[in-house]
Amino acid sequence: MIIVVKNSCEQSQFDNLVEWVKDLGLDVHVSRGENSTVLGLVGDTSRVDIDLISSLDMVDKVQRVQEPYKNANRKFHPEDSVIDVGGHKIGGLNFQVIAGPCSVESEAQIIEVANAVKASGATMLRGGAFKPRTSPYAFQGLKGTGIELLLKAKAETGLPVVTELLSVTDLDLFKDVDVIQIGARNMQNFELLKEVGKTGKPVLLKRGLANTLQELLMSAEYIMSEGDSEVILCERGIRTFETMTRNTLDLSAVPALKDKTHLPIVIDPSHSTGIAKYVEPMSLAAVGAGADGLIIEVHNDPKRALCDGAQSLNPEQFDALMGKIRKIIPIVGKKYDGRD
Amino acid sequence: MIIVVKNSCEQSQFDNLVEWVKDLGLDVHVSRGENSTVLGLVGDTSRVDIDLISSLDMVDKVQRVQEPYKNANRKFHPEDSVIDVGGHKIGGLNFQVIAGPCSVESEAQIIEVANAVKASGATMLRGGAFKPRTSPYAFQGLKGTGIELLLKAKAETGLPVVTELLSVTDLDLFKDVDVIQIGARNMQNFELLKEVGKTGKPVLLKRGLANTLQELLMSAEYIMSEGDSEVILCERGIRTFETMTRNTLDLSAVPALKDKTHLPIVIDPSHSTGIAKYVEPMSLAAVGAGADGLIIEVHNDPKRALCDGAQSLNPEQFDALMGKIRKIIPIVGKKYDGRD
Amino acid sequence: MIIVVKNSCEQSQFDNLVEWVKDLGLDVHVSRGENSTVLGLVGDTSRVDIDLISSLDMVDKVQRVQEPYKNANRKFHPEDSVIDVGGHKIGGLNFQVIAGPCSVESEAQIIEVANAVKASGATMLRGGAFKPRTSPYAFQGLKGTGIELLLKAKAETGLPVVTELLSVTDLDLFKDVDVIQIGARNMQNFELLKEVGKTGKPVLLKRGLANTLQELLMSAEYIMSEGDSEVILCERGIRTFETMTRNTLDLSAVPALKDKTHLPIVIDPSHSTGIAKYVEPMSLAAVGAGADGLIIEVHNDPKRALCDGAQSLNPEQFDALMGKIRKIIPIVGKKYDGRD
Amino acid sequence: MIIVVKNSCEQSQFDNLVEWVKDLGLDVHVSRGENSTVLGLVGDTSRVDIDLISSLDMVDKVQRVQEPYKNANRKFHPEDSVIDVGGHKIGGLNFQVIAGPCSVESEAQIIEVANAVKASGATMLRGGAFKPRTSPYAFQGLKGTGIELLLKAKAETGLPVVTELLSVTDLDLFKDVDVIQIGARNMQNFELLKEVGKTGKPVLLKRGLANTLQELLMSAEYIMSEGDSEVILCERGIRTFETMTRNTLDLSAVPALKDKTHLPIVIDPSHSTGIAKYVEPMSLAAVGAGADGLIIEVHNDPKRALCDGAQSLNPEQFDALMGKIRKIIPIVGKKYDGRD
Repeated sequence: MIIVVKNSCEQSQFDNLVEWVKDLGLDVHVSRGENSTVLGLVGDTSRVDIDLISSLDMVDKVQRVQEPYKNANRKFHPEDSVIDVGGHKIGGLNFQVIAGPCSVESEAQIIEVANAVKASGATMLRGGAFKPRTSPYAFQGLKGTGIELLLKAKAETGLPVVTELLSVTDLDLFKDVDVIQIGARNMQNFELLKEVGKTGKPVLLKRGLANTLQELLMSAEYIMSEGDSEVILCERGIRTFETMTRNTLDLSAVPALKDKTHLPIVIDPSHSTGIAKYVEPMSLAAVGAGADGLIIEVHNDPKRALCDGAQSLNPEQFDALMGKIRKIIPIVGKKYDGRD
Repeated sequence: MIIVVKNSCEQSQFDNLVEWVKDLGLDVHVSRGENSTVLGLVGDTSRVDIDLISSLDMVDKVQRVQEPYKNANRKFHPEDSVIDVGGHKIGGLNFQVIAGPCSVESEAQIIEVANAVKASGATMLRGGAFKPRTSPYAFQGLKGTGIELLLKAKAETGLPVVTELLSVTDLDLFKDVDVIQIGARNMQNFELLKEVGKTGKPVLLKRGLANTLQELLMSAEYIMSEGDSEVILCERGIRTFETMTRNTLDLSAVPALKDKTHLPIVIDPSHSTGIAKYVEPMSLAAVGAGADGLIIEVHNDPKRALCDGAQSLNPEQFDALMGKIRKIIPIVGKKYDGRD
Repeated sequence: MIIVVKNSCEQSQFDNLVEWVKDLGLDVHVSRGENSTVLGLVGDTSRVDIDLISSLDMVDKVQRVQEPYKNANRKFHPEDSVIDVGGHKIGGLNFQVIAGPCSVESEAQIIEVANAVKASGATMLRGGAFKPRTSPYAFQGLKGTGIELLLKAKAETGLPVVTELLSVTDLDLFKDVDVIQIGARNMQNFELLKEVGKTGKPVLLKRGLANTLQELLMSAEYIMSEGDSEVILCERGIRTFETMTRNTLDLSAVPALKDKTHLPIVIDPSHSTGIAKYVEPMSLAAVGAGADGLIIEVHNDPKRALCDGAQSLNPEQFDALMGKIRKIIPIVGKKYDGRD
Repeated sequence: MIIVVKNSCEQSQFDNLVEWVKDLGLDVHVSRGENSTVLGLVGDTSRVDIDLISSLDMVDKVQRVQEPYKNANRKFHPEDSVIDVGGHKIGGLNFQVIAGPCSVESEAQIIEVANAVKASGATMLRGGAFKPRTSPYAFQGLKGTGIELLLKAKAETGLPVVTELLSVTDLDLFKDVDVIQIGARNMQNFELLKEVGKTGKPVLLKRGLANTLQELLMSAEYIMSEGDSEVILCERGIRTFETMTRNTLDLSAVPALKDKTHLPIVIDPSHSTGIAKYVEPMSLAAVGAGADGLIIEVHNDPKRALCDGAQSLNPEQFDALMGKIRKIIPIVGKKYDGRD
């Protein structure tokens, strides 16, 4: 960490700051400049309160050199992490496609969709049992029953199951779930992250709507610091001023994250755009950007299918999309273990 | 709710949409235009999934006429809510000042600060026992012990206590706390909001860093839908592109919220700016804007006081600020029951 | 346009509003609801001041049904516009690659780069002669001399030239330029847009750093309303909270714009990410998303090449990228007339 | 400026970078750390391309110590600038109120409004002659005739005139205008800033909708670098995700700018909120925040006055507001030379 101190500062204040930093167990290198003096802090600076220091009048600027995350940091783990989910590897050269309905609605629905997406080449099943809704009056999901139905679909199709957890109090219902999803609104629910980290299960961590990639990595660090190394990062669109799409899918997050971390990155083109006809172009874009996988909404709901309009694809649209995805995967040097 | 349907849509699709809306128990008024047809939905539209409808190809636009919140809505509760916290009323014409340290550090510290802020005219004590931190390696607060120390300071000074809750599993520790604070990062932790709503205690709900005021009101609705009507809204700065301040304090939230809701609104000038010397101008601005109260960080930490730089004020700075606040309160037609 | 009027409004106010709207030459359809009344305005509403109406106390909401742009609107021009630039078609099924240095530095530099990018398959040459710089002390470009050098490179290679105009006072220098570029900071410099529209030349219009796609289309409308139909839209990254990339490339702009307009859309992966090693993945993503072209920075500057770090690619990197681009173009159903 | 170089970098690259920096006429102080080496650049770094350096692979971080602006910088001009506009001083302890209609519509209108706002205590007259409009089909102002009418109102009332310039080609029409306004959308129209700077007239520079305060100061620097020291900064609301107000008024810009610059700062509560009833609370907030003045829209248009809804106040509302403003001005230690 580097602290730039104004030379207008009093010597007593300066000494006090240096002493205080040394109290934190850090070495300090001082280099005096014309208008300011630079303190180079060497050691483990992850416990230093950068907000406090930068708010001192005597301090002009503070800058971290070492990233504040360790377990998620590629510097300390150069090779890509490859996570095995029910026999399907994700990360490194391995590309996976997670598909399924937004919400589990009935046994018939989830099993029909599971069979359909498997037939088209999906390798994991997604479906919401606990639904975070902005309004307390909106449908909150089938909850425990939804989990049971997902597990029936898993038994029927062999597809590993990915579903969202909202509260630590429901954790015991997730013991047979393959991947626990943490939604965008809970990305900084640190108490939830700690508890999920204790399960040791694969976790799909979605980026918050207005969070930076470094904040996403710090949240992954919360999970990993509890001993769980199997974190899959998910970009699902960020909040911007644009209104033609529900959110803005940040695909440059893929190369940027790959620079900084060894964890796999999947893209959610359904929630980010909110519009079914944009799911295909953004899915192909995600493969081109080098993502490790996709998580796509597919439903069989006639009411939605009627106008082909919801953010979910119907099975036919998903099948057509998978055909194009399979053509681009090898061009970017990835492989895929779903059907050809 | 108004749905604008493209006339290019097939009649069968159109009829299907109308039927589906009627299935939701709503009346539909149809008015055909040149290029589009307008459906006026009459009834309780709070259960209608606006995302789904707006995503239909046949739909050009959807717009809510009725706000999606009820208990928090001034339309259904025209007079200001006045909430009594340990004998101090907040809301309506009543202005209150909540002050205290960012974190509870020791018995000596919290009691010294409590006595100081009371002497200067603060009417409630704030202090963090459970601290949400971006890094798992940062200090997470004294937790249960911190709550005990806050209650000792309350016993000593008579000041009601405001402190943050992070997890439902800690709720039993808060039974003697006067106001439960929900932090910005938990504003959409809906499971936590429901549990807090069941306590019936006054809740200080902070706006998320990138949330709209309507989303803030929807989160208040979560608490109120559980039967708790004592919600105090708090604007604490939003994330923008500006970097000279930590966040951007959105003071127009005060008149905008007063238009839409009957709930009291307090302003946090400390976290929003992150810089002590900006706390005074932004506090005076908040009073001018018509806020119902302020929540201000005050500490007695010599290490910070040394350079007068942290976002916290020292007791002398807070005392000077209170003198100016008292002069502006009557100009905006408010009253205040702290010392003159 | 739809105006939702509160029923609490006085009849006299209501009548006055209706009369005022009729004075604008519009037909009004009134449909009374329980709590509000909906006015449907039929006719050319592009002159109606939506800000004024929505700010009236009596008005609950106002919503445009018809987009405020006409010439750029796909509704009135369903087939894709195909623009011919020096024999190279862009738009529809035609994909083009524009490449060259950020700034024209010397005759040797621009001619060397032009030959290199042509050899790799670029079909147009870019280069900055007039440089918009945040600081008045930064290099502002070779100006008129830069234009001359670009035209020499065009004479040498046959590549059409794309370069940025900053001021109407320089317009006469651009008469032999093939495509006039309007930069992001001038997207809403309406006086400049009008003058450029009078030239009838192809215009490459870059999206502003914090502008919506509708605002981009309104700026295109300024150019087209002067009679110039040859506008090429360019997404070059928008300002978000993310700091790992300079800006956030909004690739969902591609399908969203194609929905709304018939104009071609090109992507700038160089300025958006600001980092050379992210240019390849984002270029491949742009092709996957269905863009009509790319505008990529390529230089031969040894000082930059030394560390392979600037946002510009060197000729070898660009050549390798072109090889991958050529493989994805046919998968998305586009064709390309550069070298195979 | 500080450059943090990775120790993984090759010595030849490192030497090359150091040599290149020295070529820019800067001294370099090198201090080697464990994982990285810090280069401290001493001298005038305003010409160093920070984007280029930070994009080098070998570079971990780059940070400016010295701000990139000089003439606007309080460090080099510690005392507040006080600008005289037609005998009314603004800046330092002097508070001024600029008021008038959004657009000049007729001689009767501008003279009636000018007399009204003067009677209530406004000290300068604002009015738009050249209007920047998002749509080419919207009213673009009376242009030259509007300027003439403003000058008639000035002759009648003695109020100095503030009005917006859109293009250098209209500059000669502004020779008798007291303050040239540069609108938010032209804040980074650098060619326009340079020309305005050559006039030596007072300039009211509005912050762009998504620009940082440092970018605002860099644009002021463009004007000042041409020799014009009389720049008045104006905060008029920034673009955020909030929709209950048109923009978000950033009042913390007042203390933050006063920290960094000696230039006066005025607040525009009319355009920022877009809603007349929010203008009073935000005006009082601005005075509390320490602003040097206000620019407020006042009209006498019966069509708007009918519903008291537009963002403009009517003369009665403005008169009532001025009464409250006069009470807060002395509390924040300012003085005002309009009527008591």
